[in-house]
Amino acid sequence: MLGFGITGLDYVPMANAFFSDLLATISERGRSLLRRGDPADGKEDASDLAELCEALLSGRGEASGTAMAREVLDRYHDLDDDGRRTFFEALARDFGPDKAKLAEAIKAWQELPGDGHGSELHFASEPRRQELIRRLNRAPGGTADLVAMRSDLLTHMDGRKDLAALDRDVVHLLGSWFNRGFLVLRRIDWSTPANILEQIIRYEAVHEIRDWDDLRRRIDPVDRRCYAFFHPALADAPLIFVEVALTETIPGAIAPLLAVDRKPVPTERARTAVFYSISNTQRGLGGISFGNFLIKQVVEELRRELPKLDTFVTLSPHG
Amino acid sequence: MLGFGITGLDYVPMANAFFSDLLATISERGRSLLRRGDPADGKEDASDLAELCEALLSGRGEASGTAMAREVLDRYHDLDDDGRRTFFEALARDFGPDKAKLAEAIKAWQELPGDGHGSELHFASEPRRQELIRRLNRAPGGTADLVAMRSDLLTHMDGRKDLAALDRDVVHLLGSWFNRGFLVLRRIDWSTPANILEQIIRYEAVHEIRDWDDLRRRIDPVDRRCYAFFHPALADAPLIFVEVALTETIPGAIAPLLAVDRKPVPTERARTAVFYSISNTQRGLGGISFGNFLIKQVVEELRRELPKLDTFVTLSPHG
Amino acid sequence: MLGFGITGLDYVPMANAFFSDLLATISERGRSLLRRGDPADGKEDASDLAELCEALLSGRGEASGTAMAREVLDRYHDLDDDGRRTFFEALARDFGPDKAKLAEAIKAWQELPGDGHGSELHFASEPRRQELIRRLNRAPGGTADLVAMRSDLLTHMDGRKDLAALDRDVVHLLGSWFNRGFLVLRRIDWSTPANILEQIIRYEAVHEIRDWDDLRRRIDPVDRRCYAFFHPALADAPLIFVEVALTETIPGAIAPLLAVDRKPVPTERARTAVFYSISNTQRGLGGISFGNFLIKQVVEELRRELPKLDTFVTLSPHG
Amino acid sequence: MLGFGITGLDYVPMANAFFSDLLATISERGRSLLRRGDPADGKEDASDLAELCEALLSGRGEASGTAMAREVLDRYHDLDDDGRRTFFEALARDFGPDKAKLAEAIKAWQELPGDGHGSELHFASEPRRQELIRRLNRAPGGTADLVAMRSDLLTHMDGRKDLAALDRDVVHLLGSWFNRGFLVLRRIDWSTPANILEQIIRYEAVHEIRDWDDLRRRIDPVDRRCYAFFHPALADAPLIFVEVALTETIPGAIAPLLAVDRKPVPTERARTAVFYSISNTQRGLGGISFGNFLIKQVVEELRRELPKLDTFVTLSPHG
Repeated sequence: MLGFGITGLDYVPMANAFFSDLLATISERGRSLLRRGDPADGKEDASDLAELCEALLSGRGEASGTAMAREVLDRYHDLDDDGRRTFFEALARDFGPDKAKLAEAIKAWQELPGDGHGSELHFASEPRRQELIRRLNRAPGGTADLVAMRSDLLTHMDGRKDLAALDRDVVHLLGSWFNRGFLVLRRIDWSTPANILEQIIRYEAVHEIRDWDDLRRRIDPVDRRCYAFFHPALADAPLIFVEVALTETIPGAIAPLLAVDRKPVPTERARTAVFYSISNTQRGLGGISFGNFLIKQVVEELRRELPKLDTFVTLSPHG
Repeated sequence: MLGFGITGLDYVPMANAFFSDLLATISERGRSLLRRGDPADGKEDASDLAELCEALLSGRGEASGTAMAREVLDRYHDLDDDGRRTFFEALARDFGPDKAKLAEAIKAWQELPGDGHGSELHFASEPRRQELIRRLNRAPGGTADLVAMRSDLLTHMDGRKDLAALDRDVVHLLGSWFNRGFLVLRRIDWSTPANILEQIIRYEAVHEIRDWDDLRRRIDPVDRRCYAFFHPALADAPLIFVEVALTETIPGAIAPLLAVDRKPVPTERARTAVFYSISNTQRGLGGISFGNFLIKQVVEELRRELPKLDTFVTLSPHG
Repeated sequence: MLGFGITGLDYVPMANAFFSDLLATISERGRSLLRRGDPADGKEDASDLAELCEALLSGRGEASGTAMAREVLDRYHDLDDDGRRTFFEALARDFGPDKAKLAEAIKAWQELPGDGHGSELHFASEPRRQELIRRLNRAPGGTADLVAMRSDLLTHMDGRKDLAALDRDVVHLLGSWFNRGFLVLRRIDWSTPANILEQIIRYEAVHEIRDWDDLRRRIDPVDRRCYAFFHPALADAPLIFVEVALTETIPGAIAPLLAVDRKPVPTERARTAVFYSISNTQRGLGGISFGNFLIKQVVEELRRELPKLDTFVTLSPHG
Repeated sequence: MLGFGITGLDYVPMANAFFSDLLATISERGRSLLRRGDPADGKEDASDLAELCEALLSGRGEASGTAMAREVLDRYHDLDDDGRRTFFEALARDFGPDKAKLAEAIKAWQELPGDGHGSELHFASEPRRQELIRRLNRAPGGTADLVAMRSDLLTHMDGRKDLAALDRDVVHLLGSWFNRGFLVLRRIDWSTPANILEQIIRYEAVHEIRDWDDLRRRIDPVDRRCYAFFHPALADAPLIFVEVALTETIPGAIAPLLAVDRKPVPTERARTAVFYSISNTQRGLGGISFGNFLIKQVVEELRRELPKLDTFVTLSPHG
């Protein structure tokens, strides 16, 4: 149990205890980086940034870490396309596992393949960039920035294999952080904040939503439902959302469900829930699947709210 | 981009699409386990539970996973002390890495120690229990249950080494999930819910809080502050909290700060913030450090609220 | 101090204590009204409704009151235009003060014009419809319904004087209930729920808001502010709102402030707040003034948030 | 519809439009009052305060009103017991109706006792202190201060009749503002803020709550419920609360219900709800009855939550 005791002489001025580590852990080079004004070009920027990442990784000072992590993310944000690609290449090339340590761990495991050596081997083989990404996540807003970075990475990966291992690490961590246990289901309706509704319009991938009137027809009538998963660290971003139409019977076609002038089905007559559209919003979370979890929980919600529903249909997913 | 299309024939009844996987992925043995009534003894229970974990791991059906994960956690909860130890032993012994796959990965890496093979090696060496723990976390309330399970594990580890690798995996995942980026700072005061205040009384580790009147003297006067970190998945649990006294000068001793009949320092006269106590509450998160992050952010909060504060002191930590 | 004691024999079954008053206080006629199916025409409906109002007024049973009040408001809602006018006429004609009691009070006051008799006179002269309106307000959603009823009343008053006293009573009570002390200021921005933003578009009275894009230009840029007063009983209705542009200097004209392609003024350069539009939304609250209170509090908010603002201008109100 | 237009010349600097009225409406005497330092004694203070009330009443400037109202309430708060009594006497004596206007209104009514004249008579007979109280309520925190003032008034009224008319006015307005339509039901349990729970301990009037452990036994077990009414303007004050025990059958005595070591009744076995205690907290709201409304809504809540409840008993109220 961590604890402070107190005696007459024990005071430790904060400046030493909590801030000096910032200075101690950034190398001279690092500090000059922090102060640098107009860097020459994107490549140099990216290489400076990689050095700052080294400083962040080497620092044991947790407290200083969040400021440095914020700095890394801000500078990444200011990089142009070339700079970002160069930075990704550095992460892929220079932030792999510690090879000496790994060789040792392999040797020990091969001699005695027990639980302890297995564990050593696993942690020794962890690319250093995984810890780097965890430290970047400590910054305020870090999670959102990492999701955006992953989206850039997908763009740059196109047609090349050398960034695949980096991507695998990013996806591995994001997948763990966006574990279904951390997702929160929320209903989307006409009392939802506009900045969230705006994303529903933008990311609807199946049946385009043309404007705010069209949106309202999808979420406001008594026979319509829309639900989304949110993550606490991205509070304003619906990660995935599903649109549901409540009907009396299984419909023969989708068009009448979306007609402008249709008459809503009174709730007490609804027997069928048609899950007619599901869309992801975060390209940076591509490959991490939320869809089945979302549909399952929405089915549970609807059953609780409307016990008379007895038929749940979805549509064969395309791709 | 995931999406559903719709044609006249495309309906997929939900029962097949989303629920059948539950049945499909639990083996015959698994299903009989789910239905079992009064098991004979703790050891058998624990071994049944390990089998259910295998079923959870083998299932590709994400949707079914949350129910099965909930089942595992509930059964774990019902185990007695012996049963839990047996279960931990099973996790340590039987849920390590896939040795054949690992041997292959080592061979490939040793032949060509490039980025791709390094990545393969790392993921091949991951003990299967890591994925198991991630799947358990999907259950409603799963994170809290895993933290409690870790606390049990610490008890059972006492004086034995064979559970160390298991513990390392658990700590690795909890450390990643309780990353500082996911923690939320909240002030604790007299308008805080009683179920949270109760934990402040219970877990104060340095200067005992005797009762509710004593608590009130720590958090309610204008010259006292208390802050805690919370995690969204454990909304009612302050993970760590710090108590602060605002004073005019650095105090010569702690006793007068806690005296029952002292007079509060008016806020406008406060120049010093004394961080006189910090305590963790979750034994299951032992080894994951929050203290420096907490103090750093509280210093920032206090500076923003009270710009006249110019001295921040803490006390040399004991142990 | 109200309190229950308890002894072995003291139980009072709820059905008697809390529900029987419903039956006791509705007259035979009243009860038949509650059960009536398809009434013949609007006039008869309105007259039935007036009778139900008498029943509501005569009831001492507070508990039954909310249900009966809800019934009155629901039936009013179902009346057509003619029915509503007839109902208002009944309220004006038949729900004035008790004349006998008033004559007595006048006599007593004229004999001895002291404090006690003055008080008697005031309460004796209160039209019975004031108490009726207070009882209607007890119903769930009653306040909103009364505001809507006032809006109808304004329509029917047009060009006739016999409803003026009724209107004066309604305004008197609404004015007391919408006392500035009960109003809550909230900022309107792009994270405000759509059902509230929709009302900003609809009720903007000075410079028309054409669509959602236009709305966003009014509330989302860093140099724009919008604030509204809300009342707890009408949580989704902004009662009045003001639009503010932050500028460097006093603008020469309004058009450039609203231009589609203008560049926002960075917050740190803003010195002037231009209150360029203020609009009411609730016709039923016409005559109750909120504008000066709103502007005064918004000025205070802006001063707190942006201490560099030194010039606050509004525009001469038209009408 | 209120609205601003704008032309090149129409700017009205705020200082004139919204603040000058403060100066304009406070008389010279009023302004000197606002600045006065150490007044001689309580009586003089009270008389100064009455003058400030006149200034507040005469002001048409709504915007200035909230500041002046705050000033009146603050000074009232600083008065000692004698000063408060003197102030109440002034309100009773000097803030009655305008007698000349009232005489006219009586005459008009007696000549032609129609709706218009009746309305005139009612509003002419309104004591000026009613409008004063409404204006005091505009101040931030005004409602809570008026409730506290009423509590003082009850103390001073003891055994004297000359303050009765004043009290009637205060009760009339508070009764209107605390109309059941504005009250909000909230459940009180172990997750309720401590500053609210503290009031439950303090104001329990029937079966004393000894300490926090005792409180917890009343609100935390699965077979206990506690509900309170709140008003939006007194957000931290439960106005009235009721304690409920869920039981299998009607209990023979109260003592076993409150026993320290009793075993809770599982929710699914509960058939009876015993309303064993109800308490008011605000002496200043004495005479305004909330009890029946509270019990009625709690019965509705319990029926919704626990449909198997079929017996609701209360206990014959004492006093």
